Amino acid sequence: MMPAMTDTDQSGLILQSTVTAAGQLRLSLVPDAPGLPGPGEVVVRVEAAPINPSDLALLTGPADLDTLRVEDGPDGPVTVADVPRERLRALAARLDRPMAVGNEGAGTVIAAGEGAEALIGRRVGMLGGAMFTQLRRLPARDCAVLPDGATAADGAAMFVNPLTALSMPEVMRREGHRALIHTAAASNLGRMLNRVCLADGVPLVNVVRSPEQAALLRGEGAAYVIDTSAPDHRAALTDAVAETGATVAFDAVGGGRGANMLLHAMEAAAARAATEYNRYGSDSFKQVYIYGGLDTGPTELDRGFGFAWSVGGFLLTPFLKKIGGQAVGEMKARVARELTTTFASRYTRTVSLRDAIDPETVRAYSRKATGAKVLIDPTL
Amino acid sequence: MMPAMTDTDQSGLILQSTVTAAGQLRLSLVPDAPGLPGPGEVVVRVEAAPINPSDLALLTGPADLDTLRVEDGPDGPVTVADVPRERLRALAARLDRPMAVGNEGAGTVIAAGEGAEALIGRRVGMLGGAMFTQLRRLPARDCAVLPDGATAADGAAMFVNPLTALSMPEVMRREGHRALIHTAAASNLGRMLNRVCLADGVPLVNVVRSPEQAALLRGEGAAYVIDTSAPDHRAALTDAVAETGATVAFDAVGGGRGANMLLHAMEAAAARAATEYNRYGSDSFKQVYIYGGLDTGPTELDRGFGFAWSVGGFLLTPFLKKIGGQAVGEMKARVARELTTTFASRYTRTVSLRDAIDPETVRAYSRKATGAKVLIDPTL
Repeated sequence: MMPAMTDTDQSGLILQSTVTAAGQLRLSLVPDAPGLPGPGEVVVRVEAAPINPSDLALLTGPADLDTLRVEDGPDGPVTVADVPRERLRALAARLDRPMAVGNEGAGTVIAAGEGAEALIGRRVGMLGGAMFTQLRRLPARDCAVLPDGATAADGAAMFVNPLTALSMPEVMRREGHRALIHTAAASNLGRMLNRVCLADGVPLVNVVRSPEQAALLRGEGAAYVIDTSAPDHRAALTDAVAETGATVAFDAVGGGRGANMLLHAMEAAAARAATEYNRYGSDSFKQVYIYGGLDTGPTELDRGFGFAWSVGGFLLTPFLKKIGGQAVGEMKARVARELTTTFASRYTRTVSLRDAIDPETVRAYSRKATGAKVLIDPTL
Repeated sequence: MMPAMTDTDQSGLILQSTVTAAGQLRLSLVPDAPGLPGPGEVVVRVEAAPINPSDLALLTGPADLDTLRVEDGPDGPVTVADVPRERLRALAARLDRPMAVGNEGAGTVIAAGEGAEALIGRRVGMLGGAMFTQLRRLPARDCAVLPDGATAADGAAMFVNPLTALSMPEVMRREGHRALIHTAAASNLGRMLNRVCLADGVPLVNVVRSPEQAALLRGEGAAYVIDTSAPDHRAALTDAVAETGATVAFDAVGGGRGANMLLHAMEAAAARAATEYNRYGSDSFKQVYIYGGLDTGPTELDRGFGFAWSVGGFLLTPFLKKIGGQAVGEMKARVARELTTTFASRYTRTVSLRDAIDPETVRAYSRKATGAKVLIDPTL
């Protein structure tokens, strides 16, 4: 039987990021033909793809963005930046290999292979990399049909942030904690997590960096908001941790003394309940997961919080693998049901693929300013 | 029935460490009567007690040792040092409360309560704190009868180091790793761990700080010894990690970039085996446990080793509680069997209780120099 398909001879443009052995980052758009969909596959016309912080490691990660400039290339203009030599060694495996970028997106199915014919013409969200492109071929199982009336923008970010927001309370429960701390809490992800925790009755301590961010979260119903620009924030954090019993935190910042501050607050809260001095610190186990790198500097831990602690990396994909298909399926179903409410994303700017590699735009989204989020529309 | 006992009206001296609210550390010897042994209890004449690094937090921890001096007190001379004001807050629970010190020791049972009469006259090792004393009353279950011919010095350190050395490979096995890294590996504990790993066929990477320490461990059969004073030590460490497959480390140092170096070596070893670039680092889970604080400065992690990592505190007592009585019983039985071989401790100096608080002696053992270990003999 022939695969049912229409109009698959098309080719489109795809965004590629290359780090050269000579020490350049090169961002360009090159022609790409997705090819015919095989059994169980579809071809999607991409209509929306968010630039997530988790895309930046691949997109621009090692480059010195102060050196961004445009040069002429064989396929049109190329955005170029220098990569400091000392960062090249860690990149050996990607040197001179063009990398496709973009963890997730949404669009309309324009062709389908055997068994996936029912998806033709449907609007879907997609997870799987290489989404900063005009045409994407992928397995139908990596797509989720959007609810009626949902736009591509609504469905473009239905995986990374929503599944991360659902995973944090899931980690909390599975590891025996009873409340959560989250930093950079006024981000798209942070506001989503706040809505999840309010709906599910999970006590959440939101840590933000300005009075405006604090007001935003309080306006969205958050009970515990700590503004680290306030002079009394350490005492306020300890109070919130003591009241909620939070012993696990998810930290988007990574560098500096943020994780250290969280561990001290947890230990101080535990010490309030203690009746006698313990030279090795409290027995209360304290966990910080670092899932982002808003501050790329080193993490500093003064260890003045006893021995019952752990700081580690958190990455979504291995966690989903660990909890297994059924648990992940339930999460995905919830995201689809609450796509335009709990899991709504907001964008401050929509750009074309070409604009996405414009030096000024690159610098803007690389600042990762809270609340500023860029959506690529490859049809523009 | 009357408890069987002899000569229990004695009193002895006990070493006390007090941090005053005014900001002084005060070390003194004061008279102490252990009292009559209750059912299941014994009174032991302490004949040997090691000064372990784990005792120092309580003994001298917060004080500025450059200010050590002797003053006259009501019960004789008192060793005094200043405690920097900013460290006092963390010590609220012990301020102005005299603390007894000494995690373990050995001696001869001189009195016993009901059910423990068989121990009278026997030489025992003890675990339970307050061992820097002349007479110690404690439950018989916290004592282990020493093998015939063993001296008090042989049995004085039969708990902390031996159970720690046995716990490290136990953690390795329970958490699914297949080889170990250990830092400060030329310590009493490190040499013990090397003997355990050689006997049990556990691949061990020993990290030391000088050619002399490296030679010592190689002379004792260690296959993998990394000397961080050698210029090529990073490459040698990565080679050793790649050969052994070590993905868990126990670090006695704590401060600085040691843990960071270990995680980089594990990640570099994992990357050697990888076939393609992974922007988030390898999937290989890397664990460092910090169990000591030879460097009291902050732990610095540059996070250039992906997201599959964890750094945490390790403390013996909660680990033993977690694995349960039977596993701990098997460990203790092995220690007793191999007390003067695998688990032999060496001391560079034996001192009286009075000498143990002499300023010069305090400064000497507080340096925690590898290989320099002090034993207190309270009968002197």
